[in-house]
Amino acid sequence: MTTTLYGKDILDVQSLTDDEVHLIMETAARYERVMKSGGRLLNMDGKTLATLFYEPSTRTRLSFETAMLRLGGTVLSVADAKTSSSSKKGETIYDTGKMIEGYADVAVIRHPETGSAAELAAGSSKPVINGGDGAGQHPTQALLDLYTIIKEKGKTEGLTVCLAGDLKNGRTVHSGAALLARMGVKFIFTAPEALAMPASITEGLKKSGVEVEINPDLDSAVAKSDVLYMTRIQKERFEDPEEYERLKTSYEVTNETVKKAKKGMIIMHPLPRVTEIAVEVDAYEGAAYFRQAANGVPVRMALLALVCGCE
Amino acid sequence: MTTTLYGKDILDVQSLTDDEVHLIMETAARYERVMKSGGRLLNMDGKTLATLFYEPSTRTRLSFETAMLRLGGTVLSVADAKTSSSSKKGETIYDTGKMIEGYADVAVIRHPETGSAAELAAGSSKPVINGGDGAGQHPTQALLDLYTIIKEKGKTEGLTVCLAGDLKNGRTVHSGAALLARMGVKFIFTAPEALAMPASITEGLKKSGVEVEINPDLDSAVAKSDVLYMTRIQKERFEDPEEYERLKTSYEVTNETVKKAKKGMIIMHPLPRVTEIAVEVDAYEGAAYFRQAANGVPVRMALLALVCGCE
Amino acid sequence: MTTTLYGKDILDVQSLTDDEVHLIMETAARYERVMKSGGRLLNMDGKTLATLFYEPSTRTRLSFETAMLRLGGTVLSVADAKTSSSSKKGETIYDTGKMIEGYADVAVIRHPETGSAAELAAGSSKPVINGGDGAGQHPTQALLDLYTIIKEKGKTEGLTVCLAGDLKNGRTVHSGAALLARMGVKFIFTAPEALAMPASITEGLKKSGVEVEINPDLDSAVAKSDVLYMTRIQKERFEDPEEYERLKTSYEVTNETVKKAKKGMIIMHPLPRVTEIAVEVDAYEGAAYFRQAANGVPVRMALLALVCGCE
Repeated sequence: MTTTLYGKDILDVQSLTDDEVHLIMETAARYERVMKSGGRLLNMDGKTLATLFYEPSTRTRLSFETAMLRLGGTVLSVADAKTSSSSKKGETIYDTGKMIEGYADVAVIRHPETGSAAELAAGSSKPVINGGDGAGQHPTQALLDLYTIIKEKGKTEGLTVCLAGDLKNGRTVHSGAALLARMGVKFIFTAPEALAMPASITEGLKKSGVEVEINPDLDSAVAKSDVLYMTRIQKERFEDPEEYERLKTSYEVTNETVKKAKKGMIIMHPLPRVTEIAVEVDAYEGAAYFRQAANGVPVRMALLALVCGCE
Repeated sequence: MTTTLYGKDILDVQSLTDDEVHLIMETAARYERVMKSGGRLLNMDGKTLATLFYEPSTRTRLSFETAMLRLGGTVLSVADAKTSSSSKKGETIYDTGKMIEGYADVAVIRHPETGSAAELAAGSSKPVINGGDGAGQHPTQALLDLYTIIKEKGKTEGLTVCLAGDLKNGRTVHSGAALLARMGVKFIFTAPEALAMPASITEGLKKSGVEVEINPDLDSAVAKSDVLYMTRIQKERFEDPEEYERLKTSYEVTNETVKKAKKGMIIMHPLPRVTEIAVEVDAYEGAAYFRQAANGVPVRMALLALVCGCE
Repeated sequence: MTTTLYGKDILDVQSLTDDEVHLIMETAARYERVMKSGGRLLNMDGKTLATLFYEPSTRTRLSFETAMLRLGGTVLSVADAKTSSSSKKGETIYDTGKMIEGYADVAVIRHPETGSAAELAAGSSKPVINGGDGAGQHPTQALLDLYTIIKEKGKTEGLTVCLAGDLKNGRTVHSGAALLARMGVKFIFTAPEALAMPASITEGLKKSGVEVEINPDLDSAVAKSDVLYMTRIQKERFEDPEEYERLKTSYEVTNETVKKAKKGMIIMHPLPRVTEIAVEVDAYEGAAYFRQAANGVPVRMALLALVCGCE
């Protein structure tokens, strides 16, 4: 049977088969080629995307909206769904799903609570894409991260990926680790003890045969990494402000860090960055974080087109 | 003379002749047929709708915006007009009308104050549609309600329509009753005494020959109704919280209510609902409220196209 | 060499050569002719504009967005960029530029701080247009003002332009004066002493050979002006509320003012107006302020198309 995502919700990376992931990667690459050659896609002419953002995330919202527009589709935008009248009057997310299926062909939801995307999908007969729900999943970020690694390094099999910074609270690294693990990478987890990757995730990876090294020292980690995936260390996670200052500095990528890195190592970051990657590093050819953000467009184009059967 | 709405403002239902109402109904039905058959409308290619929302109403805003997009038009969206710089600096709605006529071909306004839509229309030489102004009118809701009844029941003449819940404060039921009365329905008004339909409206209907029954008991009302139109009972309208709890329960539609209903009765609601219709009722084939919300799209398409002369 | 704006940022009027200004004027006039004749422009089909507004300015935002839509392009709208997650998390405007170049073909920024537009332009490889940055520049307002004068009076050379109201704080009049000075106008500066044009600007103009008259009396100023450019006098600029009331009245344009004016004088205003132009004046044929606002559309169409090479 041919792989298809037509009519499916994209709620988490676990529900995607390897074939489906490859289909998304190939479709994204195809769209990128068309755009680079100056071509004009009109696959989704006459279709409408609704973006329902219950917490602000300009980057994710714009990335989805530009993806829809570049396919010839149109957008209904709710940048501040939390203060909408329906939400204030006590409408359930399920009922919002019933509403939105009458207005749009596909919906993206961003919500602070885990499970919200699934609730919207339960209400809507049209496909729903999870744009990040609380501490839960952010599957499109995981997919664009995978796309970036494939594009920058040509493969994933056998690569060493160092996840660094706050591995405890970052849903990006949780979703991402689950997906990359299936693609044959080895991990180094580089975090202060207080922000270590949850044991359940680390143990789960090891049990399924994934190589994992715990190494809180960034300099020695980058020496053997093909990919450094940085995340923000947030001040509010710390009780002791001094500890924050100390750790913040030790997890700052500078030109010094780059000098110690394995040849060809790329640096990724879900953005926005604050101080964890110095601006001087932008000039390094392996600094892939802005290219990574731009990769969100073809990957989200692929998802929108595939779930609507317009690829 | 042929009926036309070209260049007209849609401020209230009273100003619409029966011929104009029928034209709107027929145009909406035609657009719905085209969309159902997979056709693509481009009537409003090159035209722009401005949605000016001085109070949030995501459902109404998205419904108008998707209507415009499905006609091939484009949208300028002001989801939070109240905090706009012009509004803060003291610009009158009249001047906003003078501005918006330079930017858009048609405008929709939602505003907490009665008369705002008329003021915008006075300023703008382009057509203005009232998307709800305070305790005043909400004509497009009344029109989509009428469209829903015609679509679900095949006619309006001779139907018994039970308006239930808060009939005192709901502009939806006030606009709606005025329009339905002209279409030959009989009414049952089912509300707690504190939230009864204003006497001026009830008397006005009776004087113009409309049959009206006042019956605060929901169960006996549904037994003879073809249409049950529910509205929300809002906690803040009550001084005594116990009375609120008691009434809230007696005006909750459940499967038990449906069992007592006249055969074929449909249930409508302007949405969002909170507790006044139990989720279990969604499975009832006469549960028309989500279909009603979706009907907002073809009706608003018809209005936009007709006032711009693009039908 | 042919004049071109392809790939350029529009940050201030000083950086535009006279040839570039004329190209913008001619392109705007051409687009206006096409629109007036009912033609449909699709120059920017497939291109996307991002509007990043860190302070509300509905008029400027809608004017740019409708300009883009009328060229067949699409829009990504951030009406409230200040509360966006990236901005809150401490992302620099430079990094926002790096992000936006991946999503859009051209960006407009409005920001309360001088220099923000230049910072965005430094980050983005795609063209950036300054939609007003703090006390700094508002070049597109200056250009649409110039366009209005040319359209209304047929020329600028030799005209007497009276800038009136708050000349101290208005970036509109600062940008505008710089541009008009190059186009051969004479100035009358009509302001209360507390709100006089900064001496640096007045002296600069005089040094470059521009004729400038300081005349705080509005009635005698209009008697010899071809253009009266009014601005708002803001209450919060005054320590003494009585002084505010006195000045507010003396700088109110009424039908009496119009009677004293030079024949054919036009009245302009960046809008929104509050009390500085009485509503009765709207009927005067020289009342050009609403036409001026509408002129923002063809001028911004010209700018968007020119910097993207789609003219």
